[in-house]
Amino acid sequence: MLVVREAFWGTRRFDDFQRHLGIARTVLTDRLGRLVAEGLLRKQRYQERPERFEYRLTEKGIDLWPVLMALLTWGNRHAIEGPLPVVVFHRECGGEVDDRRMCTRCGAALGPYDVRGRFNDPGAGQPVTREAS
Amino acid sequence: MLVVREAFWGTRRFDDFQRHLGIARTVLTDRLGRLVAEGLLRKQRYQERPERFEYRLTEKGIDLWPVLMALLTWGNRHAIEGPLPVVVFHRECGGEVDDRRMCTRCGAALGPYDVRGRFNDPGAGQPVTREAS
Repeated sequence: MLVVREAFWGTRRFDDFQRHLGIARTVLTDRLGRLVAEGLLRKQRYQERPERFEYRLTEKGIDLWPVLMALLTWGNRHAIEGPLPVVVFHRECGGEVDDRRMCTRCGAALGPYDVRGRFNDPGAGQPVTREAS
Repeated sequence: MLVVREAFWGTRRFDDFQRHLGIARTVLTDRLGRLVAEGLLRKQRYQERPERFEYRLTEKGIDLWPVLMALLTWGNRHAIEGPLPVVVFHRECGGEVDDRRMCTRCGAALGPYDVRGRFNDPGAGQPVTREAS
């Protein structure tokens, strides 16, 4: 699930998954393989020599977005103390996204490619903004 | 998660959880204990002699409803072939519930106590209707 979540924030390449998730390469290889086998991710070649692949969400994977957003909302409410690690905004108007994935400012019904996440990493200085692509 | 889902469909008592989930009593005892420890369920006495308890969702547990509804929607779309095992309706007007937990008939924003599930058990004859209480 963490790998899928990472894919929603725009990560596609093995080394980027590895760096963001901080897990062992063997574990990541196994997880990615299982997600491909389950049809949530697909492998796509982006370079020929040497051959390199990236991992993209399938439609079945993209449809998990409401589950992840619901978990995020629940976690923000019940598992986080202090500043929220990530806040999700509507890309177009900057409004916050509510727990039905609607924009609280303009009222639009939002999908995964309509939003941007602001990550507050207590270690880093400035918040980092990420989005699906 | 299956125990929490069961609680949303109105189950409160040990024997009913056991019957609906079809799992071993020792496993169920362990799961219920962990859900109480995590603050998702609370034990409430409903009978004095002999002392008997039922398990009720806490606010933290009730807030998992959007996660379960999102999983249901995803499962209906991607993991089920043939007739859907459960369809969720707005209690008041009978409209179907969409993937933002809104009524497709009257447009109301729904919570767990506003809906009714119709369970199509291929083994049983008639569909069974259940709701939280």
